[in-house]
Amino acid sequence: MSSSYGKNIRVSIFGQSHSEGIGVCIEGLPPGHRIDMEELGFFLSRRAPGQNSYSTSRREPDVPEFLSGLVGGVTCGAPLTALIRNTDTRSSDYSGLFDLPRPSHADFAAQMKFKGAQDVRGGGHFSGRLTAPLCIAGGICVQLLKKQGIEIAAHIASIGGVSDALFDMANVSTEDFKALSANAFPVLNAESGKEMLKLIEKAKAEGDSVGGIIECAILGLPAGLGDPMFDGMENRIASIVFGIPAVKGIEFGNGFACAALRGSENNDAFYTDGETVKTKTNNHGGILGGISSGMPLIFRAAIKPTPSISIEQDSVSLSKMENRKLKVKGRHDPCIVPRAVPCVEAAAAIAVMDALLESKMYKGGY
Amino acid sequence: MSSSYGKNIRVSIFGQSHSEGIGVCIEGLPPGHRIDMEELGFFLSRRAPGQNSYSTSRREPDVPEFLSGLVGGVTCGAPLTALIRNTDTRSSDYSGLFDLPRPSHADFAAQMKFKGAQDVRGGGHFSGRLTAPLCIAGGICVQLLKKQGIEIAAHIASIGGVSDALFDMANVSTEDFKALSANAFPVLNAESGKEMLKLIEKAKAEGDSVGGIIECAILGLPAGLGDPMFDGMENRIASIVFGIPAVKGIEFGNGFACAALRGSENNDAFYTDGETVKTKTNNHGGILGGISSGMPLIFRAAIKPTPSISIEQDSVSLSKMENRKLKVKGRHDPCIVPRAVPCVEAAAAIAVMDALLESKMYKGGY
Amino acid sequence: MSSSYGKNIRVSIFGQSHSEGIGVCIEGLPPGHRIDMEELGFFLSRRAPGQNSYSTSRREPDVPEFLSGLVGGVTCGAPLTALIRNTDTRSSDYSGLFDLPRPSHADFAAQMKFKGAQDVRGGGHFSGRLTAPLCIAGGICVQLLKKQGIEIAAHIASIGGVSDALFDMANVSTEDFKALSANAFPVLNAESGKEMLKLIEKAKAEGDSVGGIIECAILGLPAGLGDPMFDGMENRIASIVFGIPAVKGIEFGNGFACAALRGSENNDAFYTDGETVKTKTNNHGGILGGISSGMPLIFRAAIKPTPSISIEQDSVSLSKMENRKLKVKGRHDPCIVPRAVPCVEAAAAIAVMDALLESKMYKGGY
Amino acid sequence: MSSSYGKNIRVSIFGQSHSEGIGVCIEGLPPGHRIDMEELGFFLSRRAPGQNSYSTSRREPDVPEFLSGLVGGVTCGAPLTALIRNTDTRSSDYSGLFDLPRPSHADFAAQMKFKGAQDVRGGGHFSGRLTAPLCIAGGICVQLLKKQGIEIAAHIASIGGVSDALFDMANVSTEDFKALSANAFPVLNAESGKEMLKLIEKAKAEGDSVGGIIECAILGLPAGLGDPMFDGMENRIASIVFGIPAVKGIEFGNGFACAALRGSENNDAFYTDGETVKTKTNNHGGILGGISSGMPLIFRAAIKPTPSISIEQDSVSLSKMENRKLKVKGRHDPCIVPRAVPCVEAAAAIAVMDALLESKMYKGGY
Repeated sequence: MSSSYGKNIRVSIFGQSHSEGIGVCIEGLPPGHRIDMEELGFFLSRRAPGQNSYSTSRREPDVPEFLSGLVGGVTCGAPLTALIRNTDTRSSDYSGLFDLPRPSHADFAAQMKFKGAQDVRGGGHFSGRLTAPLCIAGGICVQLLKKQGIEIAAHIASIGGVSDALFDMANVSTEDFKALSANAFPVLNAESGKEMLKLIEKAKAEGDSVGGIIECAILGLPAGLGDPMFDGMENRIASIVFGIPAVKGIEFGNGFACAALRGSENNDAFYTDGETVKTKTNNHGGILGGISSGMPLIFRAAIKPTPSISIEQDSVSLSKMENRKLKVKGRHDPCIVPRAVPCVEAAAAIAVMDALLESKMYKGGY
Repeated sequence: MSSSYGKNIRVSIFGQSHSEGIGVCIEGLPPGHRIDMEELGFFLSRRAPGQNSYSTSRREPDVPEFLSGLVGGVTCGAPLTALIRNTDTRSSDYSGLFDLPRPSHADFAAQMKFKGAQDVRGGGHFSGRLTAPLCIAGGICVQLLKKQGIEIAAHIASIGGVSDALFDMANVSTEDFKALSANAFPVLNAESGKEMLKLIEKAKAEGDSVGGIIECAILGLPAGLGDPMFDGMENRIASIVFGIPAVKGIEFGNGFACAALRGSENNDAFYTDGETVKTKTNNHGGILGGISSGMPLIFRAAIKPTPSISIEQDSVSLSKMENRKLKVKGRHDPCIVPRAVPCVEAAAAIAVMDALLESKMYKGGY
Repeated sequence: MSSSYGKNIRVSIFGQSHSEGIGVCIEGLPPGHRIDMEELGFFLSRRAPGQNSYSTSRREPDVPEFLSGLVGGVTCGAPLTALIRNTDTRSSDYSGLFDLPRPSHADFAAQMKFKGAQDVRGGGHFSGRLTAPLCIAGGICVQLLKKQGIEIAAHIASIGGVSDALFDMANVSTEDFKALSANAFPVLNAESGKEMLKLIEKAKAEGDSVGGIIECAILGLPAGLGDPMFDGMENRIASIVFGIPAVKGIEFGNGFACAALRGSENNDAFYTDGETVKTKTNNHGGILGGISSGMPLIFRAAIKPTPSISIEQDSVSLSKMENRKLKVKGRHDPCIVPRAVPCVEAAAAIAVMDALLESKMYKGGY
Repeated sequence: MSSSYGKNIRVSIFGQSHSEGIGVCIEGLPPGHRIDMEELGFFLSRRAPGQNSYSTSRREPDVPEFLSGLVGGVTCGAPLTALIRNTDTRSSDYSGLFDLPRPSHADFAAQMKFKGAQDVRGGGHFSGRLTAPLCIAGGICVQLLKKQGIEIAAHIASIGGVSDALFDMANVSTEDFKALSANAFPVLNAESGKEMLKLIEKAKAEGDSVGGIIECAILGLPAGLGDPMFDGMENRIASIVFGIPAVKGIEFGNGFACAALRGSENNDAFYTDGETVKTKTNNHGGILGGISSGMPLIFRAAIKPTPSISIEQDSVSLSKMENRKLKVKGRHDPCIVPRAVPCVEAAAAIAVMDALLESKMYKGGY
């Protein structure tokens, strides 16, 4: 435990990379909402593999079958369960890995925990493939949140050290979102995007991989969302975002940069904008004391380079307790950052939906 | 909700800065363990205010009274509750703040959430003072974990841009801890410590404040601790560490730095050390797939500068919806980072204790 | 775990019969509500000991001190903590019991679980005394529910086989409640009440005790409260009511009686009463599919006779594993049923409050 | 919420009577255990419909497909998900019911809660059919518990007022279980079984239905299992057993009968049996203070008569708010008690498994 998240909406993710299927069971979805399947399909396609040079050549349609929770495409208040069949699996690729853990993969830790019972094929339950059901749940929440006036978008803030422009934290608007969601490689600055792609191509050519940073903005959040201490918006978002494989850090607002500042530089001055209270700067990233301030909620997540590389690496034979060389076979993304962008949006959407349902701010239905 | 954390150990923190008292109720403590009150007292003293130039002059003994859960100083399996009376309170200092929220404090967000019912005195339930009960719970967990061979220590990694040395992530040992816990201003490099103190003094003299970064290491963790997805060690630790006021970011292992690396640089090669499997580097910070690898667990938390500064700031009158100038009165830390160090250790200890009790790796009692 | 209950309101009870104090920490109380302390005091007095012939002679004022969660007597959104000091304790009474478990008390089971670390004094955390903090939390919920138009009352349905009249399940009204809450020995039929008292006196004179049944009605519940399967109103109420020591059974509506009926006898026919849908009978006790139907919610709880009796009983020496005779010393109620009545109301109030906060039916505040 | 149960094992049930499928997602199953599919199939067949005169003629193979959580039939530590397709559905039977709620069914309450969004076909998520996935989870737990030396069996204690013999609570043994699990109509006394069947036939012939009581015994429980207050074994078992549709009451040990007894009659005297402490009687039903005593755990659940009967009943048109006559069509059990027997065993097995995993008493793997 726990492959499920949330209190007022509960998202339970199941499946292994090479099991019969993967999927999600969602409890607590407000009833009476029609799911736009086309929109959801587009959302899922943004993380789907096999689309381009920088993602794995594994091809899967990944069209979810909805087993429960809907009547005529409308949520009925019962748990919604969606299933994606695993089709294009090549388990033989992984057969050798039981004894030889891949560096910086979950293989070794899983072996220590599950004593060999774990499913090693394709990383089993630890596979990045499990972000597909996360995106189903998140994509549905994105649609529900839109009805509440809340919109979420993320972009590639950096890859391999090449930086994109960042959101103007105090003034980011849905205008800035338009270019992103439509784009399979979402960046604010097209030029840096091209540089990033070059970097990825180079890494791929050399059998290597690169990491990056994703920045996410949530707009339209009412002020007063979230709770003190351990259910603050930071806690809620962090505890789900770290559920995305390869995330090694998260920061809100100006994040780690605040550590080098003085209070007089970091504090966000209040001012009135008509009947609304805003802050001139937004170093707090829209969260004060764990609770939304009404300013844009901004966070960044660090994504490590894909651990699967073709270059030979040092590992050990767990059975013989001897050092060994390892060359990882199989198909892998030289950079998972672009495909992780919708996953970060999905995670954020679920966290916000859960906080919203717990608060008394959820408008209408249910 | 939620001012409580944990599933197999449950820590519920209560109180406001100026209420009758603050405290903690801890469910799930293994029975039969004697609490070393002297050791706990020392742990609490590390975050206590009024000790030195860089902390608030508010003086409180903060000696907890144990109301339940102990028989003759030994845990009895019933919830342990500890109470700290609030004595040296000057509510008058805060009387004006109801209408005029302090920039980058929780005041405004709390007003939006609680509609004026919240306790504004001293920040109420949002006050840093609530980290005292967190440290009671954490200090007890530190003692229980030591019996399991698990030790935790944190130090000031940077303040206002001045950096301390960092832990050697692959080789940090309890040797490195000795200098830290004894030290009210815990740094690995004494020289940088002196520079930091100068920075703090300067900020204080100018009525300003500074932020910093805290680095924490957890040693002796068995491999295989933690769970996939949303109960990984990162998720568990992040969701409690963000409960410490002023934390704006967290990273594990090399954290955000991994984003600029290639897989071949970031991957941690395995090797055998006798019957143990180790990694040559520890960029993964002791966590793979959310599960402990047996290497030191390393994380860093960004602490923003104390928002309370004497310098005049811009705020608004919430009743009149007009812009206003604000000068924050009261006694405040020019830098809370040193006092936050034991809080970070406490949070980590509680998260590890919870994961340990959920796993089948907790040795002995209960 | 778990001495805490609830998801959207969380009630954590702490303390042992002879610890420094007992109390409760309540998270999730809607802010902005003034607690009527006089009304709460009266509610608590209904379960207070030492009032009359049929309760223990242990006398304690049991006036709670509110440590947090209130500002000027009004809930502020922070966890509310109330403390009752243990004063009139005679631990010596219990010193011998460590080795000699009292029949039908928790002593033996606690020893098996806590291996001797448990607090045996007065039953420790298992003492009926812990229902005092339950009544604090419940008494507060009773006040909040009243503002929502929801009222709760319970009465003694039977003692030692002598039955009171039962609520007319389909037509019970707040009129029927008036006589009850004011009465220290709440019954619908005064004559049967007198008989019950005689029974209790007789049992007391013979150093024995008697059990009974408590019936509880909840009026004003909106239809549609509760959730399918494991969060139905039955599940929610049962899981807290069994937290009251000595409860051995619970039934809703006609309960066990339905087992002997045919569907045509047990089904509750619908009819319209103006714009409201009602049922002619109420065998379903106001709950269909776990969800409130808008009819009165009715349940009954079976309370076993106080296990503490002065008559000599058979026990064993746990250290010597030999059979022993035991005479229970100390002060005990010959019948706890009357004092359990407000406890049942309190438990019901907490369960309803939690369900109400989870639903979107909670009106106003928060 | 909540269609999921448990803390250390989490069982999430999804599906509606006429959705694509129904199923269960189980988190926290210990890894490394082979599921005996034949044994599980037999367990499921005990609740399967269409077998005999007293159950609905709806026929479904109900063979679960395992989508995840197994590798070669062995639990791998990842969530186990099983799916049963809904095949033999006749939605037309229910089309009329939207406006005309069936007496004592969930229809009306669901309408009040979900405002018409709920799935009415076959009772939707409220259908007794959802006990099939409960039995999958429970049947798996039964197998895991057997390895721990814990066995569970239930029988029909009464139907329509005709009583079976009851378990000898202090002396029931696995010997008594042999006759039960093999029997599609499990009773201790064959003669009363025949009478019950006559009653059912008669009710069926008259288009009516009958209720009953199920008694369940759990053997081999270690003493010390369960927790004080709200996680006692009674609370845990009650909160899942009320998740079985039609359960209206539950009692432990002698249950409601204790209310008419004196302490001297109800108390269970201790004695030593070699190195074991036992009680001469078992009125406490194996639970003291919420914690297992090591004696057989005994409880009884009251099952109301199937609300679906062919006899004309009074209902209302929710759209027109007018009284109407209703004749329920479709295929229904004249008595669901026999099929509910394995459901009660399943619920008990899940509750015990959850308590066992939380305790430190779970032996071996994980």
